[in-house]
Amino acid sequence: MKKPIVGIIMGSDSDLPTMQEAALILDEFGVPYEMKITSAHRTPNFMAKYSSSALKRGIKIIIAGAGGAAHLPGMSASHTPLPVIGVPIKTKSLDGLDSLLSIAQMPGGVPVATVAIGGGKNAGLLAIQMLAISDKGLMKKVIEYKKKLEKESLKKNKAVSN
Amino acid sequence: MKKPIVGIIMGSDSDLPTMQEAALILDEFGVPYEMKITSAHRTPNFMAKYSSSALKRGIKIIIAGAGGAAHLPGMSASHTPLPVIGVPIKTKSLDGLDSLLSIAQMPGGVPVATVAIGGGKNAGLLAIQMLAISDKGLMKKVIEYKKKLEKESLKKNKAVSN
Amino acid sequence: MKKPIVGIIMGSDSDLPTMQEAALILDEFGVPYEMKITSAHRTPNFMAKYSSSALKRGIKIIIAGAGGAAHLPGMSASHTPLPVIGVPIKTKSLDGLDSLLSIAQMPGGVPVATVAIGGGKNAGLLAIQMLAISDKGLMKKVIEYKKKLEKESLKKNKAVSN
Amino acid sequence: MKKPIVGIIMGSDSDLPTMQEAALILDEFGVPYEMKITSAHRTPNFMAKYSSSALKRGIKIIIAGAGGAAHLPGMSASHTPLPVIGVPIKTKSLDGLDSLLSIAQMPGGVPVATVAIGGGKNAGLLAIQMLAISDKGLMKKVIEYKKKLEKESLKKNKAVSN
Amino acid sequence: MKKPIVGIIMGSDSDLPTMQEAALILDEFGVPYEMKITSAHRTPNFMAKYSSSALKRGIKIIIAGAGGAAHLPGMSASHTPLPVIGVPIKTKSLDGLDSLLSIAQMPGGVPVATVAIGGGKNAGLLAIQMLAISDKGLMKKVIEYKKKLEKESLKKNKAVSN
Amino acid sequence: MKKPIVGIIMGSDSDLPTMQEAALILDEFGVPYEMKITSAHRTPNFMAKYSSSALKRGIKIIIAGAGGAAHLPGMSASHTPLPVIGVPIKTKSLDGLDSLLSIAQMPGGVPVATVAIGGGKNAGLLAIQMLAISDKGLMKKVIEYKKKLEKESLKKNKAVSN
Amino acid sequence: MKKPIVGIIMGSDSDLPTMQEAALILDEFGVPYEMKITSAHRTPNFMAKYSSSALKRGIKIIIAGAGGAAHLPGMSASHTPLPVIGVPIKTKSLDGLDSLLSIAQMPGGVPVATVAIGGGKNAGLLAIQMLAISDKGLMKKVIEYKKKLEKESLKKNKAVSN
Amino acid sequence: MKKPIVGIIMGSDSDLPTMQEAALILDEFGVPYEMKITSAHRTPNFMAKYSSSALKRGIKIIIAGAGGAAHLPGMSASHTPLPVIGVPIKTKSLDGLDSLLSIAQMPGGVPVATVAIGGGKNAGLLAIQMLAISDKGLMKKVIEYKKKLEKESLKKNKAVSN
Repeated sequence: MKKPIVGIIMGSDSDLPTMQEAALILDEFGVPYEMKITSAHRTPNFMAKYSSSALKRGIKIIIAGAGGAAHLPGMSASHTPLPVIGVPIKTKSLDGLDSLLSIAQMPGGVPVATVAIGGGKNAGLLAIQMLAISDKGLMKKVIEYKKKLEKESLKKNKAVSN
Repeated sequence: MKKPIVGIIMGSDSDLPTMQEAALILDEFGVPYEMKITSAHRTPNFMAKYSSSALKRGIKIIIAGAGGAAHLPGMSASHTPLPVIGVPIKTKSLDGLDSLLSIAQMPGGVPVATVAIGGGKNAGLLAIQMLAISDKGLMKKVIEYKKKLEKESLKKNKAVSN
Repeated sequence: MKKPIVGIIMGSDSDLPTMQEAALILDEFGVPYEMKITSAHRTPNFMAKYSSSALKRGIKIIIAGAGGAAHLPGMSASHTPLPVIGVPIKTKSLDGLDSLLSIAQMPGGVPVATVAIGGGKNAGLLAIQMLAISDKGLMKKVIEYKKKLEKESLKKNKAVSN
Repeated sequence: MKKPIVGIIMGSDSDLPTMQEAALILDEFGVPYEMKITSAHRTPNFMAKYSSSALKRGIKIIIAGAGGAAHLPGMSASHTPLPVIGVPIKTKSLDGLDSLLSIAQMPGGVPVATVAIGGGKNAGLLAIQMLAISDKGLMKKVIEYKKKLEKESLKKNKAVSN
Repeated sequence: MKKPIVGIIMGSDSDLPTMQEAALILDEFGVPYEMKITSAHRTPNFMAKYSSSALKRGIKIIIAGAGGAAHLPGMSASHTPLPVIGVPIKTKSLDGLDSLLSIAQMPGGVPVATVAIGGGKNAGLLAIQMLAISDKGLMKKVIEYKKKLEKESLKKNKAVSN
Repeated sequence: MKKPIVGIIMGSDSDLPTMQEAALILDEFGVPYEMKITSAHRTPNFMAKYSSSALKRGIKIIIAGAGGAAHLPGMSASHTPLPVIGVPIKTKSLDGLDSLLSIAQMPGGVPVATVAIGGGKNAGLLAIQMLAISDKGLMKKVIEYKKKLEKESLKKNKAVSN
Repeated sequence: MKKPIVGIIMGSDSDLPTMQEAALILDEFGVPYEMKITSAHRTPNFMAKYSSSALKRGIKIIIAGAGGAAHLPGMSASHTPLPVIGVPIKTKSLDGLDSLLSIAQMPGGVPVATVAIGGGKNAGLLAIQMLAISDKGLMKKVIEYKKKLEKESLKKNKAVSN
Repeated sequence: MKKPIVGIIMGSDSDLPTMQEAALILDEFGVPYEMKITSAHRTPNFMAKYSSSALKRGIKIIIAGAGGAAHLPGMSASHTPLPVIGVPIKTKSLDGLDSLLSIAQMPGGVPVATVAIGGGKNAGLLAIQMLAISDKGLMKKVIEYKKKLEKESLKKNKAVSN
């Protein structure tokens, strides 16, 4: 098994259904990853250690999902020079608007690459695109993936044409 | 000078005008405090160290102010068993709604005692009330403070009576 | 049975499921409490009497839950020098955003320690933390509780490790 | 001077500019009123006493203005059988959305007749309309007032006609 | 059967469940009313005629419910000197926030007495309170109603006392 | 002077700066229009008469601007079979979100073609596009207008090219 | 079969239930249309080609539905001089508020005629109204349609009359 | 002068002050870039051509800023396999909430790496971090940059220490 180069982390195992969509994309593109549950609030030291050691351990991108007062993506970003992708998890009370604002509204100096509420799949794709900057083979796959999306969308027209 | 028992922390010196209102209240009640700028995002290690050592150093309550993706109060709370009071700082783009949601919507297990947007003064008062639980002298002062508020409010009626 | 030192109040018995989570935490930490239904709007006199007599009766903290135009926490705070913790109850129409704003946005002079929408459990924990300021045994339990949270969170990694 | 039949109350003297618009309307219609500063939070007992004695003192309608966690209208309504008109005051952080929700979202059993954010003038008019239900002279004035509004609006067409 | 003095109108029969709560209250207080479906958008002329003739026909108060771009309460108010109570109906997409803003944010000169989202019951009570200004018997009933609410709320304490 | 085929109406003369942008566009395209101040709330009869007679008088499109509980566009649409374009005017308290929801969220059967908050210019353009459906000369001008926009935008690149 | 003069496009087949309501209206009025799935994001070239060739192909109006970061209506409008009607599709996380803002808040120069969230039916009607500007037969049908709406609404009064 | 590897694009020259903060960061890190004004709405073909040719021309990352119905980042992402960073520009009416939702809420398959409202600086930093994945020298600079931020923040404590 190959050494992981993407770290998928989430605050709670209830975030797993959303974050597994990121994993599925990485699997599809053949990019090795690791998956951890590390809460900014319940395991702040593990989160800090995981994030600050990620570069050394060969991780190139961190994908972090969290809901509500969603601090995991931003805190992970504060502990690592690696790009961090934040996934706002849909919440029961405010439908994820709280998660979105808690993740996107980062102060100058510490960015988080925020995707849509519940956007696990796009988080995976964004990680692939970042890696593809310096990996021609992967870039080719991204181009093919986009073509496949296009074809599938065009094909759906058969069902609606009147 | 007495040893501080309240720690006032904030993410940036631009939060100072709001947070100094907390300090003024503590001064008024004679409660010693210390004030630090420690950003969850720019100085995560100092923040973690400050928060996790606070109890040992004699701090009893932490008041934390932050704006936007306001992670300082929640992260401080994750590193200390002490009660943490969160002050959502008003922001330029979303007027502090982002700060409020980022601070109040904490997950089960790690509470933050959130006050109003820009509520530095009330953060100071809430700290006093917490301390007054086990300090009769301070409780007496709180009772007097509330009476003073009442009198001042009643007195304003002279100006509006027609 | 020990004399209650925390008062859990709520506007309606429909708030009970949320507020009982606060009670469960107090039970877990061995802190005696009382629970009352007292609506700011339907029983304003009982609410005022309950709140203004709380200190004398040995209550140290009030936890108040309410939804919609949630006035109970703020009104209880106006009648007592004790710290009041406000729990915004999730509502049918606006999902608790109305409750959150009605509780958190208190004016200078009368703070309410607001927790997350539906945050009964965290309200209980915050009360414990406030009491632990002057109770070393309780503080030890808070530290242990946080360690337990940490362990449980770390343990969940076994299920997701690939 | 005639005995007041409308009570205009507000939480703070900073609400005066908005609430004086209600007073101007009452003056215009010749309806006697009184104006008081009584905060639900700073003077809860005065507020309760004022509201619960209003009917006996000859007051027929209460107009209450408040901002933020705006509890004054709802609390006044809880203490009196009289109709209460609530005026959400514009706030610095959330522009009065907090005030609007805190006033309008009252639970079943205790209504508050809520007007627009900053709607002092309409609060005065609504009070007049309520009184006019049983006062033919006043109803005639309301009808004339509406005609005047209509005329003034129509007249403005001269300026824009091209 | 007595001549109706309150008109309950609504934009669509889907609003009936909410508006019938107003009718139930009027029944309980023995106040005769009529109920009409008249849409500001689908039957603007009937709405205008209904509203502008209401005073002459002996109607004293109009209760109007509508959802979404909820124009019925405001338009009814523009056609009558009578007080109009607006009930924001909960909507599928925005949960009634659109209805609340469309009803409450009326311009100076034409007030609508807005109640909570889905607040049919409170609309009925508010109408009763307006009528009670000049009807001592009704005022007595309002006082009794409030006492009943109080008793029922206090009684619920038996279930929660520990 | 040519007979107007577009009617620009607005609730108040304070809406004029926004609505004049629509007029400027119509001038630019040589489409004759009339401009009226007609408030849904202050002049409901003039509004109804204006809207219901518009088709007969040769008007083909109505552009209606209003703010807050913005009922003018929807009410005008209820009185005419003509297409109505709604312009949400920016408001002091809620920045036009109230206007946008009051105009866009129309019920099935009575559409309003809503443009952006403050979008007077786009309302004018949309009217032109509607007319251009059956007017080749006008369609040509729309195509040229879009080309001009494109050129101007491209030209701005000279200033930023580094 | 007649040549289509309205193009109904949508970003995904999951938008079909909403957009078919537009088709049903066009069927009812006898206006020929075509229906396509063309995503601004997955098939940007097909979308651009479809939109920029629409005028030439005899299309007179485009109705475009999309959800979330709903770019289809605005992008279609950028590629065609024809009027574009935008339908904000209700979304899982933010209930369509994101769709509404993404469609309505277009910049000066490129309008989109936005209808309500989920307003497929009104999009169809608005298209009919635009076509009816220059088609007396269609205008007659619109007038009849509005009369039918009126009758149906009035008829519902039988069920509620007490 | 070196060939640009980052493309900074924006919808209008009014976005320049925000986007130039991205350029300043790229300058500071010595990363060559180009800056273009290309509106999704006014120059859709230039936008499409710019985006779809970017990879071939050696561009590795696109930073796109837009406000309101902010379609530029998402449309650019639909035309290129490269990672696209979206900067929501603050708007006059809705303060950038519309921009944020229009950029972040992208559908599955086409991610945009969204930063905070007005977050030009962080967009630049995020681009640097993406490039640093495969550029050790750049990664070292990122680490130094974060250390500098830390030092500057810590230094500010001198001013507040009491």
